[in-house]
Amino acid sequence: MTDLSDITAVATLPPRRPDRPAGRVILLGAGPGDPELLTLKGARVLGEADVVVYDHLANDALLSHCRRDCQFIYAGKIKGHHSLPQEEISHLLVRLAVSGKVVVRLKGGDPYVFGRGGEEVSELREAGIDCEVIPGITAATGCGAATQIPLTDRRHAQAVTFMTAHQRNGELAVNWDILTQAGHTTVVYMGLSKLDEIVAGMLARNMDASHPVAVVAEGTTVRQRTVTGCLADIAGKVTEAALPSPALLIIGDVVREARQLADVDAEHCLLSVIQHSA
Amino acid sequence: MTDLSDITAVATLPPRRPDRPAGRVILLGAGPGDPELLTLKGARVLGEADVVVYDHLANDALLSHCRRDCQFIYAGKIKGHHSLPQEEISHLLVRLAVSGKVVVRLKGGDPYVFGRGGEEVSELREAGIDCEVIPGITAATGCGAATQIPLTDRRHAQAVTFMTAHQRNGELAVNWDILTQAGHTTVVYMGLSKLDEIVAGMLARNMDASHPVAVVAEGTTVRQRTVTGCLADIAGKVTEAALPSPALLIIGDVVREARQLADVDAEHCLLSVIQHSA
Repeated sequence: MTDLSDITAVATLPPRRPDRPAGRVILLGAGPGDPELLTLKGARVLGEADVVVYDHLANDALLSHCRRDCQFIYAGKIKGHHSLPQEEISHLLVRLAVSGKVVVRLKGGDPYVFGRGGEEVSELREAGIDCEVIPGITAATGCGAATQIPLTDRRHAQAVTFMTAHQRNGELAVNWDILTQAGHTTVVYMGLSKLDEIVAGMLARNMDASHPVAVVAEGTTVRQRTVTGCLADIAGKVTEAALPSPALLIIGDVVREARQLADVDAEHCLLSVIQHSA
Repeated sequence: MTDLSDITAVATLPPRRPDRPAGRVILLGAGPGDPELLTLKGARVLGEADVVVYDHLANDALLSHCRRDCQFIYAGKIKGHHSLPQEEISHLLVRLAVSGKVVVRLKGGDPYVFGRGGEEVSELREAGIDCEVIPGITAATGCGAATQIPLTDRRHAQAVTFMTAHQRNGELAVNWDILTQAGHTTVVYMGLSKLDEIVAGMLARNMDASHPVAVVAEGTTVRQRTVTGCLADIAGKVTEAALPSPALLIIGDVVREARQLADVDAEHCLLSVIQHSA
């Protein structure tokens, strides 16, 4: 593994040999956590990579698809830890491709769902670098499958929205119009730290206190934990269960179909904490 | 391949031998079209299947992961063609599992994104059948990657919604609140036949005529074709290009980032029809 101190070395790579084809960058979605949820195409391009620039979110087991001589550069974003700013990552990708390398930019989930893939592709295009994007299973569909919550089950929902809960000027900036739609599923990525505010905002906008909510931490991994409840009680249950961040919120009537709620009355907002064994 | 005439034979399978473990059903997402977009887990479970019950949408090449003695049952839904009603499919899955088979129910895209996976799982649970759901790349993220349209690029959108355009009592039933959100991306599955009505409805609700729209037919396959434009001209361009159904609509400013629009002024609503060569 190359750590940040090697970045300078990468920046001063020798120029591409004229007999080598130009390098290129492949943005690759690593999937939601379970390394078996990588696509066949993803496994193939990892095997073709000269360099893999990867994020914290990608499971390290994915790197086993790479050649033995593949170079690894960690560009991950762990809250509060030292990591490469987005601009530096893009510049690094350009430099590597210009030097003739086949570069795989491995990103957690899907590169285009809250992955900043669009910004990286823009910078690569501006630099004239050939680039390709390979999709990955995004956390919402990964966690939906793993908890058996059918995101768009027509008995409960006509559509599904994926959003993040970010701050703007110190205030929660989420789309309440969408969160309060009837017959709708909303998935909030990295939403755990904003759960209290989201619940309060939905109740203040006249959503029923029994409206179902699921929180999925470390979804699709062996450490996956799920808490289900409703607007009235989910925050307390999550605190009690001490779920770790990041976690995904699934909000809407489809949560009633979750594996563990199949045989109980979801109206009673039963507590359900499951530690998956595999 | 087993066709519908063999269903009766399946229904009268001999009862499970007591020394065989109980059967189970795995709902598996086949991905959006490119058979390499199947997950590693998907390829593995296809190799373990005794029977695969598959839809039209799944690419036939996927079945090459199956054992030679695997039985195939086609339950696909081709508009206007004879196919199994949903209820019959569910009953078939139950019968196969009860007889001790490992059954893979292969569905196009993701089983829980407009795939009726929720209903099949409900019926299986009611019958006491063990079932598992494995996600697949859904058409929206598959087509986003293949056209390099970054669905949630934060320069253009805060969130993305997946919906279908269905009829109810002869009228188009879509969520106009969501389609007309600012800074939002909407993906409409199987939306081509409703494109005119969607465009008219958005314009009638004061959306700007220059609001970008992309239509992607046979996304992620070698036959993929993309038309981009805006509310003012997309319908005409799609007619001119004679795009086939089913196709996906991507609506929102993120369309400006599509591969072919990178170097042109999207404000001018330039026509762009691309026939991908691979």
